[in-house]
Amino acid sequence: MKALVYQGPGKKAVENRPIPKIAAATDAIVKISKTTICGTDLHILKGDVPTCVPGRILGHEGVGVVIETGAGVTTFEPGDRVLISCISACGRCEYCRRGMYSHCTTGGWILGNAIDGTQAEYVRIPHADTSLYRIPEGAEEEALVMLSDILPTGFECGVLNGRVKPGDIVAIVGSGPIGLAALLTAQFYSPARVIMIDLDDNRLEVSRRFGATDTINSRDGKTVERVMAMTGGRGVDTAIEAVGVPATFVMCEDLVAPGGTIANIGVHGVKADLHLEKLWSQNITITTRLVDTETTPMLLKVVRSGKLDPKRLITHHFSMANILDAYDTFGRAADTGALKVIIEA
Amino acid sequence: MKALVYQGPGKKAVENRPIPKIAAATDAIVKISKTTICGTDLHILKGDVPTCVPGRILGHEGVGVVIETGAGVTTFEPGDRVLISCISACGRCEYCRRGMYSHCTTGGWILGNAIDGTQAEYVRIPHADTSLYRIPEGAEEEALVMLSDILPTGFECGVLNGRVKPGDIVAIVGSGPIGLAALLTAQFYSPARVIMIDLDDNRLEVSRRFGATDTINSRDGKTVERVMAMTGGRGVDTAIEAVGVPATFVMCEDLVAPGGTIANIGVHGVKADLHLEKLWSQNITITTRLVDTETTPMLLKVVRSGKLDPKRLITHHFSMANILDAYDTFGRAADTGALKVIIEA
Amino acid sequence: MKALVYQGPGKKAVENRPIPKIAAATDAIVKISKTTICGTDLHILKGDVPTCVPGRILGHEGVGVVIETGAGVTTFEPGDRVLISCISACGRCEYCRRGMYSHCTTGGWILGNAIDGTQAEYVRIPHADTSLYRIPEGAEEEALVMLSDILPTGFECGVLNGRVKPGDIVAIVGSGPIGLAALLTAQFYSPARVIMIDLDDNRLEVSRRFGATDTINSRDGKTVERVMAMTGGRGVDTAIEAVGVPATFVMCEDLVAPGGTIANIGVHGVKADLHLEKLWSQNITITTRLVDTETTPMLLKVVRSGKLDPKRLITHHFSMANILDAYDTFGRAADTGALKVIIEA
Amino acid sequence: MKALVYQGPGKKAVENRPIPKIAAATDAIVKISKTTICGTDLHILKGDVPTCVPGRILGHEGVGVVIETGAGVTTFEPGDRVLISCISACGRCEYCRRGMYSHCTTGGWILGNAIDGTQAEYVRIPHADTSLYRIPEGAEEEALVMLSDILPTGFECGVLNGRVKPGDIVAIVGSGPIGLAALLTAQFYSPARVIMIDLDDNRLEVSRRFGATDTINSRDGKTVERVMAMTGGRGVDTAIEAVGVPATFVMCEDLVAPGGTIANIGVHGVKADLHLEKLWSQNITITTRLVDTETTPMLLKVVRSGKLDPKRLITHHFSMANILDAYDTFGRAADTGALKVIIEA
Repeated sequence: MKALVYQGPGKKAVENRPIPKIAAATDAIVKISKTTICGTDLHILKGDVPTCVPGRILGHEGVGVVIETGAGVTTFEPGDRVLISCISACGRCEYCRRGMYSHCTTGGWILGNAIDGTQAEYVRIPHADTSLYRIPEGAEEEALVMLSDILPTGFECGVLNGRVKPGDIVAIVGSGPIGLAALLTAQFYSPARVIMIDLDDNRLEVSRRFGATDTINSRDGKTVERVMAMTGGRGVDTAIEAVGVPATFVMCEDLVAPGGTIANIGVHGVKADLHLEKLWSQNITITTRLVDTETTPMLLKVVRSGKLDPKRLITHHFSMANILDAYDTFGRAADTGALKVIIEA
Repeated sequence: MKALVYQGPGKKAVENRPIPKIAAATDAIVKISKTTICGTDLHILKGDVPTCVPGRILGHEGVGVVIETGAGVTTFEPGDRVLISCISACGRCEYCRRGMYSHCTTGGWILGNAIDGTQAEYVRIPHADTSLYRIPEGAEEEALVMLSDILPTGFECGVLNGRVKPGDIVAIVGSGPIGLAALLTAQFYSPARVIMIDLDDNRLEVSRRFGATDTINSRDGKTVERVMAMTGGRGVDTAIEAVGVPATFVMCEDLVAPGGTIANIGVHGVKADLHLEKLWSQNITITTRLVDTETTPMLLKVVRSGKLDPKRLITHHFSMANILDAYDTFGRAADTGALKVIIEA
Repeated sequence: MKALVYQGPGKKAVENRPIPKIAAATDAIVKISKTTICGTDLHILKGDVPTCVPGRILGHEGVGVVIETGAGVTTFEPGDRVLISCISACGRCEYCRRGMYSHCTTGGWILGNAIDGTQAEYVRIPHADTSLYRIPEGAEEEALVMLSDILPTGFECGVLNGRVKPGDIVAIVGSGPIGLAALLTAQFYSPARVIMIDLDDNRLEVSRRFGATDTINSRDGKTVERVMAMTGGRGVDTAIEAVGVPATFVMCEDLVAPGGTIANIGVHGVKADLHLEKLWSQNITITTRLVDTETTPMLLKVVRSGKLDPKRLITHHFSMANILDAYDTFGRAADTGALKVIIEA
Repeated sequence: MKALVYQGPGKKAVENRPIPKIAAATDAIVKISKTTICGTDLHILKGDVPTCVPGRILGHEGVGVVIETGAGVTTFEPGDRVLISCISACGRCEYCRRGMYSHCTTGGWILGNAIDGTQAEYVRIPHADTSLYRIPEGAEEEALVMLSDILPTGFECGVLNGRVKPGDIVAIVGSGPIGLAALLTAQFYSPARVIMIDLDDNRLEVSRRFGATDTINSRDGKTVERVMAMTGGRGVDTAIEAVGVPATFVMCEDLVAPGGTIANIGVHGVKADLHLEKLWSQNITITTRLVDTETTPMLLKVVRSGKLDPKRLITHHFSMANILDAYDTFGRAADTGALKVIIEA
């Protein structure tokens, strides 16, 4: 089969690989119909993710059809159309029992990282019963690819952890795909205002179409003053960090109102300053989270109800044969306007 | 009346001052019967609290008797024995409506800070209806002085924010009075283990008497390894910071298990490093809080039931005439073994 | 001044009454600009509310202007435009401290019940600081009359107590004004479906315009079968009772799925059967609530943001001189299609 | 093997049965070392549980050793000492995903009910990975038998659903084994008072030893008056129903304070009156629950910490050969003083 393989920092190629086989009783083999590329894949390609070694097939998102199941799989059978979760969960360990699938002792984010992933014609899914979701009758597969990772990540790490409530004022720092996913799902809770902050006017324009009530281009360094002016000097109830660098995290510290929440989504490579000399008395909450995908069933219901259209995040389509072009387009998002790109296998 | 007055960095004295008068319809004047000294008073004396100017009567804790009330006070009348909360709350503003009395727009921590405090024979209490608590029949006044600040602070900032649950493993970094208050009130929720961490063996010995299941003297720099050995390499469910310096906060970052909580109580003067490069994916929660004293009614019930004996925190007694000795004893706690000192007016 | 006075079961009249005076330091006198009629007023007129004695001025909703304040009122002054809460709250008692204003020991629902109400040119408001809300600049007064009672009641008793979540299926039994208020505010949380159930096709048609995804006319006695067919035999996540008779409460018991919630809003005059022989093992929650109006600040923010237009509930307008016509129109809602009627003073 | 078999209403016998075999890949066979009898077993013997047909081996509690596992079992292997949960949970279905194992679509309470149970030398456990718990090193097996059902039931249905908090006043109606289990676990949360109510003075005496602060023998019909006198006329924060008849449920309605909770544990055979004419405005919550055993890991930690000694519930011991005597002793609890009886296989 064709597969996109990480070959070490800066290197990737389409290789021919054998179709994966069942390795454990709880495995399933899925034939991929659609997959996509995540910002994390670009991190891997930079060499920033040590758990992902050269030779690995990338990708942790996608939909497809089950073609084979292990002896212990009871929920799925060959022919079932499924959504693949970016998180593999055994459903049995202490963390899974708490719904904290991201820290499953034999799973977590392993696809396209510690084991071969979904940017291929076939993929082996461990713990299939608790890591796959049946695609509802009549659902659009393409839309559901957004439920593998980006929508649950924006929702769980940003919106749920950020405790967004009706009437709240929310700031989202970063309007890339993940910030936009937080924007779309924040609206489940009817905040009064969602302020999107970014350096890219194009993405801010997209934000407005996606429901942002206010946008700020932060290039002039006056973001905090602007938000304080908008909020009567109080700050925001929830600040969502969706970039992953110290400066944007510290901006969240400056934006949050007393009693508010900073919900971190960004993947950080270095430490940030935590200004406890100011924040110790401000009754704030800071959260971090690797997505658990515990809300995937809820998100499937919301999508099915028509209250959320995940396809709005999709800007480009490619065939698997052209996956290198897909990477190029996705990697030059500022130029191409790419949000999420669909790759059809 | 006699009063302990801050006279600028490093300087304090007992002065004669006029008895305070009702200044607003919502005020009450309370004749102090017992007060105490807080670590924060020592911070003020170092010049670290800019809102507290020279000439201020210190103190934000105490019990006494109401001697006069303003026209708008409906809950209390002269003769009522009352507990004074360290937090003054109007009960009307947006923050008070949310129970976040610490950020009351016309109150908060103002006693012995922005206005004259309780280390005097009399004190004016603003927003008396919502800042005083009636002392229940038969209660020991001395014990209740611990409910002005230290017990609600340990409980709200440490235990409630730390979401301590039955069966949990809790680490408390710092076993001074506030860490001990967290230790006493953490036991309301039946954690399996409470590990106290400090540099002072005497305080660790006190911790064991107060219910700590484990103690660690952190002087050898191996605290994190020890805690990991105790917890199967997992870390603690809740790490409570009760010191207020960067090193102890960072220790909490190292101690907390995935999915756990760091609850900050310490008053910090400088920023700390937040190791997001490690924590971004660890599903942790960090909280800060200035005590709201919203749990004072609950704490009064628990004390009354005999499930908590606040007097265990009291080590020394002084008369108001000897309040300077009280400061001396409290200030040299490592030598004197002082926890909380009672000053009788 | 003119006032609508309850004169005993079945009797009411417009009478001339003296303008009320400040009776306690915490009172305010408000000149009413707009008021409305509640279903509860009709209950009083039937003689069903023993706390409301003949001679009482009715009404517990309205907006107006403060014309006088007692010595203890600090938040408002003459000239302030205010929203009147149907619940008077001292902000000081044990219940108010918990946000349970409905059970304020010196307040609660007293307006137009235990004391004279708002269907008059002037009204005395006890505990003014914590029972009035400043009308935001630019807000429409008429819309805000809906925030005195009906919207917080539908929201708190139905939606919040019913724990409506994104993706949920909600059934609301009763599509009168209060059921519609629950319908409007349930949408703050993006349920997948809201099924409205009533006997009146006109109100079901209104429900569809207000956002119901499904409607059922229950006259054929097959409501439960229909809902089970809609939900794969599982039932609904939340069943909201908005009628107040045993049959509709029992219908909620039949509609609720395992793990679901029945949130009662209805004012009941008699007991209902609780089928514990079926429900004991169904992990359900049943809630009752007299509105606390603790969400009024949140609702003001949501209205201000444009996410909720309360005016949709208003069908008719009358002058105070014609308040008897307003009662007639409101009392014959099935014929007149009345939801809420505005009376301008 | 020997097994206790239900032979139709009023009839039971020890029979010889074949040792069960693995029937599905997710099964395990457990050799029982200790089991016990539940009040529900007596219900079955009366013919009250239609899902349990004659010929069924009874019992849903116990500890033992795994002797065989199916191909899909990954957590356990032969030789592992395990605690058997009364609830079988697939860990995969919608209900299991929510931690509502009691309603697992292919599990729930099936042991000794829909399939053969634990009152035998061997038992087949479906969904073994998520229905068994490893017995910690050094734990007492006998104590852990109390974690199969009675302690999680008292804790989840009574204490957690009842939202017991520090300082609360709790009433538990019924001081049989399940009421006592609620009493023991309520103390995890430091309520100020726990009032036990029963008709049997012996059980009330046991209650006092187990930590009840107050006991009431309800035979004189003045229970409600007594509780109101104890609580200043307010009632209790939490009323736990642990009997299962209409009169005790209605007593809970009379006991609960405004804002309080009624948590039902009792297995009810008929409906009860719900006095909505009084309760509609009292802001109360009523919960029902079949135990989910989702707190078993937490309870294991608490037991291990020494904060709970489940052996206090054990009054008698029998060998499997004498299980009929065990039933006799347990069935005549009023005479024998039996709480839980241990049967050693």
